Amino acid sequence: MTRTCLAIILAAGDSTRMKSSMSKVLHPIAGRPMIAHVVEAISRTDISTAALVVGRNAGEVTSAASVAGIKVESFLQKERLGTGHAVLAARDAIAVGYDDILVAYGDVPLITDGPLRAARQGLADGADVVVIGFHTDRPTGYGRLLVKDDELIAIREEKDATDAERTVTWCNSGLMAINGRKALELLDHIRNDNAKSEFYLTDLVEIARSLGGRAVAVDAPEQELTGCNNRAELAVIERLWQERRRHELMLSGVSMIAPETVFLAYDTVIGLDVLIEPNVVFGPGAVIDSGAVIHAFSHIEGAHVSAGATVGPFARLRPGADLADGSKVGNFCEVKNARIGEGAKVSHLTYIGDATIGAGSNIGAGTITCNYDGVNKYETHIGKSAFVGSNSSLVAPVTIGDGAYIASGSVITEDVPPDALALGRARQEMKPGRAKVIRERALALKAARKR
Amino acid sequence: MTRTCLAIILAAGDSTRMKSSMSKVLHPIAGRPMIAHVVEAISRTDISTAALVVGRNAGEVTSAASVAGIKVESFLQKERLGTGHAVLAARDAIAVGYDDILVAYGDVPLITDGPLRAARQGLADGADVVVIGFHTDRPTGYGRLLVKDDELIAIREEKDATDAERTVTWCNSGLMAINGRKALELLDHIRNDNAKSEFYLTDLVEIARSLGGRAVAVDAPEQELTGCNNRAELAVIERLWQERRRHELMLSGVSMIAPETVFLAYDTVIGLDVLIEPNVVFGPGAVIDSGAVIHAFSHIEGAHVSAGATVGPFARLRPGADLADGSKVGNFCEVKNARIGEGAKVSHLTYIGDATIGAGSNIGAGTITCNYDGVNKYETHIGKSAFVGSNSSLVAPVTIGDGAYIASGSVITEDVPPDALALGRARQEMKPGRAKVIRERALALKAARKR
Amino acid sequence: MTRTCLAIILAAGDSTRMKSSMSKVLHPIAGRPMIAHVVEAISRTDISTAALVVGRNAGEVTSAASVAGIKVESFLQKERLGTGHAVLAARDAIAVGYDDILVAYGDVPLITDGPLRAARQGLADGADVVVIGFHTDRPTGYGRLLVKDDELIAIREEKDATDAERTVTWCNSGLMAINGRKALELLDHIRNDNAKSEFYLTDLVEIARSLGGRAVAVDAPEQELTGCNNRAELAVIERLWQERRRHELMLSGVSMIAPETVFLAYDTVIGLDVLIEPNVVFGPGAVIDSGAVIHAFSHIEGAHVSAGATVGPFARLRPGADLADGSKVGNFCEVKNARIGEGAKVSHLTYIGDATIGAGSNIGAGTITCNYDGVNKYETHIGKSAFVGSNSSLVAPVTIGDGAYIASGSVITEDVPPDALALGRARQEMKPGRAKVIRERALALKAARKR
Repeated sequence: MTRTCLAIILAAGDSTRMKSSMSKVLHPIAGRPMIAHVVEAISRTDISTAALVVGRNAGEVTSAASVAGIKVESFLQKERLGTGHAVLAARDAIAVGYDDILVAYGDVPLITDGPLRAARQGLADGADVVVIGFHTDRPTGYGRLLVKDDELIAIREEKDATDAERTVTWCNSGLMAINGRKALELLDHIRNDNAKSEFYLTDLVEIARSLGGRAVAVDAPEQELTGCNNRAELAVIERLWQERRRHELMLSGVSMIAPETVFLAYDTVIGLDVLIEPNVVFGPGAVIDSGAVIHAFSHIEGAHVSAGATVGPFARLRPGADLADGSKVGNFCEVKNARIGEGAKVSHLTYIGDATIGAGSNIGAGTITCNYDGVNKYETHIGKSAFVGSNSSLVAPVTIGDGAYIASGSVITEDVPPDALALGRARQEMKPGRAKVIRERALALKAARKR
Repeated sequence: MTRTCLAIILAAGDSTRMKSSMSKVLHPIAGRPMIAHVVEAISRTDISTAALVVGRNAGEVTSAASVAGIKVESFLQKERLGTGHAVLAARDAIAVGYDDILVAYGDVPLITDGPLRAARQGLADGADVVVIGFHTDRPTGYGRLLVKDDELIAIREEKDATDAERTVTWCNSGLMAINGRKALELLDHIRNDNAKSEFYLTDLVEIARSLGGRAVAVDAPEQELTGCNNRAELAVIERLWQERRRHELMLSGVSMIAPETVFLAYDTVIGLDVLIEPNVVFGPGAVIDSGAVIHAFSHIEGAHVSAGATVGPFARLRPGADLADGSKVGNFCEVKNARIGEGAKVSHLTYIGDATIGAGSNIGAGTITCNYDGVNKYETHIGKSAFVGSNSSLVAPVTIGDGAYIASGSVITEDVPPDALALGRARQEMKPGRAKVIRERALALKAARKR
Repeated sequence: MTRTCLAIILAAGDSTRMKSSMSKVLHPIAGRPMIAHVVEAISRTDISTAALVVGRNAGEVTSAASVAGIKVESFLQKERLGTGHAVLAARDAIAVGYDDILVAYGDVPLITDGPLRAARQGLADGADVVVIGFHTDRPTGYGRLLVKDDELIAIREEKDATDAERTVTWCNSGLMAINGRKALELLDHIRNDNAKSEFYLTDLVEIARSLGGRAVAVDAPEQELTGCNNRAELAVIERLWQERRRHELMLSGVSMIAPETVFLAYDTVIGLDVLIEPNVVFGPGAVIDSGAVIHAFSHIEGAHVSAGATVGPFARLRPGADLADGSKVGNFCEVKNARIGEGAKVSHLTYIGDATIGAGSNIGAGTITCNYDGVNKYETHIGKSAFVGSNSSLVAPVTIGDGAYIASGSVITEDVPPDALALGRARQEMKPGRAKVIRERALALKAARKR
């Protein structure tokens, strides 16, 4: 499309029913503020400029909306006098002069570029107003789209509708495209001579027609138009988003045994023939290469898992975890800011943070990289084909050479050269019969405590 | 309501299809026996006395029903001769003389006070019998409520119904309110001259009318009347309970990313603006204050989480865990009977039991409070701003002073004064080239094992 | 049934839409290749021989299908010329001479023996062709079964159907039984004079009738006939399988608080009165005896849990884990190839591998059996009523005697006699005021790093 377009995103709603200290449009869907999803959809429609009409948390909302290379300008809506009034808060942006104006909503985040493109196409085809509608089984409460000869005659509100009109199941979503060259003229015609004394954007249909213009409606799937007014609806939107994305991934060649238990972030990347077992949660920034296996009960955020690597069950990968080909991070293991080399194994009850582990090394159960002294973080470097015995503590900064061997239960505070054995543990002592004495004393104490 | 009321709860069912060694009404919903939910609903209807008609596990059932301040008296139903017979097992309680009698069922646990109040109101308005009905899309098998001029004419069983009567979708739930002053007279009129030779409570409608009284029906949502006959139905009831409670919490300002993966207990308390990530299980006794964050894969029971504290992912809080403001319990950590002070961190792979941790202290990965000697439990006290190095063992009873520092991998058996450094680990030894020898021996053994 | 039968399983499909490097029929349902489920259903229909028509991954497919005592012979379908052509790939097997031929599909794995038996019964009752049909609300796209006087007249494809025929909701599943004595004659009559030049098995209905034989249809539940063409459908089939099996288990006396979060393997065995909390994943080979409790977030594979044992939350049992009566494996514990004796407790953050633990022993938090030296595995044996202190490392091979006591934080490398106390840890040293010095240095470093 070579036509210019300004998107106006209404994001000033009060969100009382969210019962939140945070603006509604900042609540996340798939790990990213709702408003960012709207901007993302807009960015896929050859639009580069958005006017954001904001109320509460204006700074945070503007910042959250500044994604996908869209230039965002914010306009404060001081009073809440209806959608027509809200759009005019962006009067200065409209006045710049665009071919198309597209009105979207910060709390309708599932919209995709398809219907937005269709609405703009309607303008290109000569309409002055294009309303995005949806077909629904439960139209009660929505404004009905009254269409005749392919033209949109009016949007009829429930309370004003005749019985015949109420049987119409094509409804108004609120999203709309407006001829940018006439937008200010049309918008300035909206009156507030109604029960609530508000300015309604829906009046544009009849205004455009009365001025000799044409209005039409285009269709969008009902789900894309789901709005958010409370946290139950927020959860519904999250579910719809997740279902859509999981389905896309499965069709692209990702296996999910129980897709309804896999939670994706907005930017999760998963390759072909990856197997995701039940109960896996992705935070932002995860990249899983083809052929990797993510076992049940894994939590992955900001991490990269290479082909042939396996994760979990019960593993947590935190930002900066980078698992090379054929490596493994197993149960009750946490990896943060660390490279696990090719074929290296971190299998049980281990914390690896701020570290590198060379190819083919084996890290025993219960190993801890002690990377923090309460104030600063330090690094641990483990070479190739090293063996770190179970329950070892590697006190960073420390380097373990290639092929080195750390005895189980050692505390390692000094660098270990390649192929060296390091021990940091006490020799075993034995006190024959002493366990019996301890047990008898403990039982005596127990009896005494009861008295 | 100033009218007196006796609730009669039928809980003597055989529950053969549960295939359980335990009485059906003892099976839990949301962590509490089914029967207790019924009593709880009754208690919200200004009723203070309940007669429990029991069979198997009489003692345990009575004990499980003794909640919410209700005075419970049990009556043993020795034979199973129908619902009318069951109610009369409580003859002595009825004979005490109440204005209202309310009949509920121990295996219909989702009932709320609304319909129960409506039923009692029916008595207050002059009816002798008030039946609680429900509208359903699948009436087949249920007794139909035949109503004329606002009066309930009869409850027609499926097998006796005409084709016209079978189209009725208002059905009998079995729950009923009876004029307490006439109850014994009405009940004694029930006959067992039917195919199964049983005494049916539903006969009361026609009996009351034949004696010149009035019967009416009131409505309840179908879901509230879901009964439990096998464990698949038990799971359905659990799901309906969970859905209802999650929805209430979300509307009250709790965020749940995937509500269907959050399992609440009957008494879970969650404040405003709390975020609950996917896969969180609450056992009884959890209190989560406003603004706390519960990450994915957390298990919380009998614990208190203060504002601004974070839990999980993969954390387990057991009874007596008390997390102060801004504190953190992270992955693969278990906390039991312990106070975690303000801003204190227990981040990785740690067991804290029978302990107090002062404000601002940091507990390293892999720390264990050794609170048990096989017989007795002992306490660990850690002061403010202390640092416990990773993989340390704190052998209770032991006290770590404010600002003390425990070196990684130490076993601490004696108290550590404030600001002291304590070490309990061996010095590191190095054997150059020895790792290679170990490896070669191991490979030789492997080869030998294969032979 | 005394009639002989050959099952022909078509498993040569291209599965392009699976986007997989593996043949479609090898993708698992409930932890076992799809094709094995089909063979299993066939094996329950008194059939002992199957001809497998394969394409890609022929060897692996044949191997995966060799279950349940069925003798499997494979036939390569070199070209894809339709279902009729595919069946004839097994010409040599058909020519052996069977009373019945049963045609099933490797990617329709939910079929059960009921409809297969009904189809064979149709042959026994004199039909030459018996088609398995299903009733559906969404028939569009399926061939309709046209029936007159109990005979199947034709299978009418969507595109050839009249408007009246399109209202038919009984559809062709593709599964079919054929008179084995006439099968080759019938099959050789199929022509490919159609749009796609393919040989369609469905033509058999009209062919059999034209040769004076009879065709009939039998019914199967729609769900059993769900086919798999992409990974979203694979997930649907997995869900249907899980729902079916969970329901069976609940009716048999297993309690599941949230059945939709319990994932079973094809061979999971669970006894009466077992309680399964939310979020439990079973891999193959799990056997849970009556009365055991599986807490939330548990992962169990190849393990046996005896009556009265408890597992989890957050426990992982791997192959060879064997929990005796009344034993416990608790949070963040992993058990592999190990016997946990009666009443023994492995409660927190522990790895037990290649070990035996005697009755009544208590394994402290953070204990690791060090069973691996990087090359070989070794065993640990712990006697009865032993006490292993927290954070201990048991370096295998090692034996701990009955009643022995291991001090917390010990590294045990030598056998410990019964009733002995073993220590392997350093004595605690104290450096008064030193923590303050460390802290000040760390803060200075932090400041320096910032510069």
